[in-house]
Amino acid sequence: MAKAKLTHLDAKGAMHMVDVGSKAPTRRTAVAEALVRLSPAARRALTRSKKGDVLAAARLAGIQGAKRTSELIPLCHPLALTHLGVQLERTKTGVRVVTRAETVGPTGVEMEAMTGAAIAALTLYDMLKAVDRSISLGPIRLLEKRGGKSGAYTRTR
Amino acid sequence: MAKAKLTHLDAKGAMHMVDVGSKAPTRRTAVAEALVRLSPAARRALTRSKKGDVLAAARLAGIQGAKRTSELIPLCHPLALTHLGVQLERTKTGVRVVTRAETVGPTGVEMEAMTGAAIAALTLYDMLKAVDRSISLGPIRLLEKRGGKSGAYTRTR
Amino acid sequence: MAKAKLTHLDAKGAMHMVDVGSKAPTRRTAVAEALVRLSPAARRALTRSKKGDVLAAARLAGIQGAKRTSELIPLCHPLALTHLGVQLERTKTGVRVVTRAETVGPTGVEMEAMTGAAIAALTLYDMLKAVDRSISLGPIRLLEKRGGKSGAYTRTR
Amino acid sequence: MAKAKLTHLDAKGAMHMVDVGSKAPTRRTAVAEALVRLSPAARRALTRSKKGDVLAAARLAGIQGAKRTSELIPLCHPLALTHLGVQLERTKTGVRVVTRAETVGPTGVEMEAMTGAAIAALTLYDMLKAVDRSISLGPIRLLEKRGGKSGAYTRTR
Amino acid sequence: MAKAKLTHLDAKGAMHMVDVGSKAPTRRTAVAEALVRLSPAARRALTRSKKGDVLAAARLAGIQGAKRTSELIPLCHPLALTHLGVQLERTKTGVRVVTRAETVGPTGVEMEAMTGAAIAALTLYDMLKAVDRSISLGPIRLLEKRGGKSGAYTRTR
Amino acid sequence: MAKAKLTHLDAKGAMHMVDVGSKAPTRRTAVAEALVRLSPAARRALTRSKKGDVLAAARLAGIQGAKRTSELIPLCHPLALTHLGVQLERTKTGVRVVTRAETVGPTGVEMEAMTGAAIAALTLYDMLKAVDRSISLGPIRLLEKRGGKSGAYTRTR
Repeated sequence: MAKAKLTHLDAKGAMHMVDVGSKAPTRRTAVAEALVRLSPAARRALTRSKKGDVLAAARLAGIQGAKRTSELIPLCHPLALTHLGVQLERTKTGVRVVTRAETVGPTGVEMEAMTGAAIAALTLYDMLKAVDRSISLGPIRLLEKRGGKSGAYTRTR
Repeated sequence: MAKAKLTHLDAKGAMHMVDVGSKAPTRRTAVAEALVRLSPAARRALTRSKKGDVLAAARLAGIQGAKRTSELIPLCHPLALTHLGVQLERTKTGVRVVTRAETVGPTGVEMEAMTGAAIAALTLYDMLKAVDRSISLGPIRLLEKRGGKSGAYTRTR
Repeated sequence: MAKAKLTHLDAKGAMHMVDVGSKAPTRRTAVAEALVRLSPAARRALTRSKKGDVLAAARLAGIQGAKRTSELIPLCHPLALTHLGVQLERTKTGVRVVTRAETVGPTGVEMEAMTGAAIAALTLYDMLKAVDRSISLGPIRLLEKRGGKSGAYTRTR
Repeated sequence: MAKAKLTHLDAKGAMHMVDVGSKAPTRRTAVAEALVRLSPAARRALTRSKKGDVLAAARLAGIQGAKRTSELIPLCHPLALTHLGVQLERTKTGVRVVTRAETVGPTGVEMEAMTGAAIAALTLYDMLKAVDRSISLGPIRLLEKRGGKSGAYTRTR
Repeated sequence: MAKAKLTHLDAKGAMHMVDVGSKAPTRRTAVAEALVRLSPAARRALTRSKKGDVLAAARLAGIQGAKRTSELIPLCHPLALTHLGVQLERTKTGVRVVTRAETVGPTGVEMEAMTGAAIAALTLYDMLKAVDRSISLGPIRLLEKRGGKSGAYTRTR
Repeated sequence: MAKAKLTHLDAKGAMHMVDVGSKAPTRRTAVAEALVRLSPAARRALTRSKKGDVLAAARLAGIQGAKRTSELIPLCHPLALTHLGVQLERTKTGVRVVTRAETVGPTGVEMEAMTGAAIAALTLYDMLKAVDRSISLGPIRLLEKRGGKSGAYTRTR
C-alpha cells in the first residue's frame, strides 16, 4: 500500500521538504472551505454591523494568510500563487468561507487554500468574539484539487 | 444589548485596532482546541510513521504560529506571550490539539490560542494529506479564558 | 547645537538601535497623514467601485503595515502598539489618509504612524493603478506627537 | 471605458488576487522615485554624519522592503525579483530615492519599485527625525514601466 | 584578478541586488555544515532528553530558516526552494548539522544552505543553554555547490 | 544535578515555550561574538571595496535579524529589545562581529545576541563568497550575560 506513505518523511523517517526539482511545472488549483458557526446573537451583530468591513477584513486576511503558507506550515514549499480568491457567504448557521488558490509550478496548492480558509475564519472569530466566545470554526476541508501527478480530487461527502 | 457591540469597529463602523492603552496589564490565559478527524488509513499511517517527528512538527508549528497571531489576524494587538504550550493526543477519531497561551498585558490571548491550534491542525493535515485528502479539521474553539475585565469564560458544551 | 545629533549613530558614527532601557514607559501617541493625488479618471473609478472594499483594503493594510514597522525600518525598536486607527477621507484631489498610533513604552510611535500611512497610500495606488499609473503619493508627514522626553510636536504648516 | 476597471475587484466587486496563471512570463521592469524634503538643519546633520552609513541604511531598507511587497500590499502577487537597485542622491532640497525593480514573470513590478522607494524614504525620516520632525516625504511616484500586455509607461510630467 | 569582484556592489560601489534576469534557470544545489560543540554535561542532557523532540526542533527551525533566507540576508534574491533537508548526527564532540538546499532558478542556494545550518545550530544552543552557556557554534561552512555559471565547488579542507 | 534540565521540555518531555509570566521584569543584557575567517584574497577584496557599505550591510542585517529571533528560534519568547548594537572589527584573520542585546523583561536575551551575530556573519559571507566560497564562520558564542535569576555569566575561555 505504497499510497499511504508520508511524503514529508525521508528514508530514515526524518522530516524534510521533499524534492520537487524534477517535477515539471503545471497549472494547479485547489478549493477549500471553512464553516463558521454563529449563535443568533452573533448573527444579529454581524447583520447590524457595517458588514462590508467585517467581511472585507476576513477576505483580506485570508488572502494574506494564504500567501504566507510556506512560513506557517513547516514543510510546505514556497511558491508563487497566481490567483487567490476568498468568497464569504451567509448561511443559516453562520458564514461559509470558500477559498480558491492557483499556481503554475511543481507542487500543489492545497495548503494555500486550506490556510487561507482557516485564517479568514479565525478573523471572523476575532471580530465577533466580543459578542459570543463560543463561536466554533470548522469543518475546514479540501473541496477540490486539480493538476499534478496525483491527479484530480473532488470531495464526495 | 450593549454587550453585542463589535469592538473592532469604531464609532463610524470602520475597523480599527481598539485602544487598550488605559487598561492595566494583568495575567491572562486562554485554552483552545482543534480536532483533526482522520480516516482509518490516515490513522494507520500516523501510527506507522516515526510519529514523534510528525507530532513534533505540529507542536512547533502551533507554537510558532501563535507567536505570529498579530501578523495574521488584522486587528489583533501585538503582545508578548509569556507561555505557549501545545498538547497533541491521539483519540479514537484522530488527533486532538489543545493549546494554552498566556501573557501579562492589557489584552486577552484567545486569538493566540485559537491560531496556534489551527496552525498545528493544518500542519497535521499537510503531513497526512498524501494518505488521505479528505481529512477534516474542526471544530476549532475556545475552551477557557481567564483574566481581563470581561471575566472568565469556560465552554459548557 | 546638540539637538541636531543623529541618535541612530553611536559615538563612532556607526548605526545602532539606541538604548532605551532606562527610559520610563509613558503613554505616547503620534498622528501622520498621507495624501493620494488622483486623476479625474481614478476618482471616477473609485466612486463607481464597491468603494467600501477598496477603502477597507487600504485601512487594513495600513494597520497591518504599522504593526510591522520594526521589521521594515532597520533601527526602529519593536514595540507593542496599544491602538492603531486609519481614517480615509475623499478630498477634492483624491484621498487623505490619517493614521493614529499609540503605545505605552519607552519610545515614540512616529514611525508606526508614518509607516501605516505610507502602506495605506501604496495600497490605494495598487488598487487604482490599472486606471492611472501616474497617481502620486505624498506628502507623507507627521502631524502630531505626544509623550516622551522630547515633548509634544504639532505641525504648524 | 474598459480601461478604467479596477482589476483587483472580481465580478461581484469583491477583492481578490487576480488570476495571472495564463499570462506568459516576460521580463518586466519598473522605476519609481521618492523625494525627501529636508530642512537646512537636517541637511547639515546629514552632511556632518558618517553619511555613508545613513544612506546605506536607507538603501538596504529599500531593498529589503521591496522584497516584502506582497506581504505588505494585500492584493499583490508574490514574485521573485531578479534585480533591485536603490540610488540615493543629494538634491538642493534633500534626498532623491530612485528604485529599479525587475522580474521575469506574469505580473509587473510597479509595486515593488514604489514600496522600495517608500521604505527607503521612511528610513531616512527615521534617522533624521531627531533633528527635524517636519521632514516631508513625497511625491512617491512611478517613473517608468516596461514589459507586460499593458505596454510601456513613462511619466511625462 | 576579475574573480575577486564583490558582485553585490554596483559600478559605484553601492550595494544592490544583482541582476539575474538574463540568466537561464538551471538546477542548483548546495550543501553546508555547522558544528555544535557540546560539553560533557550538555551531551549527557541531550542523551537523557526525549532527544527526538530536541533534534526535531532543530531540524524544523533549519528548514523554516532556510526558507526565509532572502528576508534575513539583505542582498539575497528571493527564490523558490525545491528541496531542503537537514541532517543531524551526534559526534564525539557534539552535533553536526548538514543541510542540503536545491532550486531550479537563476541564482545559487549557498546562502539557503548556510542559513539553514546556522539556524538549526542556534536552535540547539537555545535548547541546551540552560545546561551549558559556553556551547560554541562553528565552523559553519559550505561543503559543496553544483550548477550555475561559476561551476561546481567542493570543499577540499 | 538539577542544573542540567532542559527547560524547553515540559514534564512529559514535549517542547513548549516555558512559562515566564510570574518572573519579574529586570534589565538583562547579553554579548555574543562571531568570527569570520577570510582568505587573503577575501581580505584584499574587502579592503579594496567601498568597505563601509559592506560592513554597514552586515551591521544592519545583524540588527534586523536579532529583532526576529523569536520567529526564527522556535521556543524563544517574543520580547521588546531596548538596545541592539553590532560592532565589526577587522582582525588578522578576518572580521570579528560583537553584538550586544538588552531588554527589560522576564527572559534573557542570549539568543538575540547570538542570532544577531550569526546573521551579520552570514551577510559577510554572502558579500564575499564570489571571491572565496571557503570562508568559514565561527566560533559563534556567548561572551557575557547579566540579569535574571540564573545570574551573571562571563566566558572564561
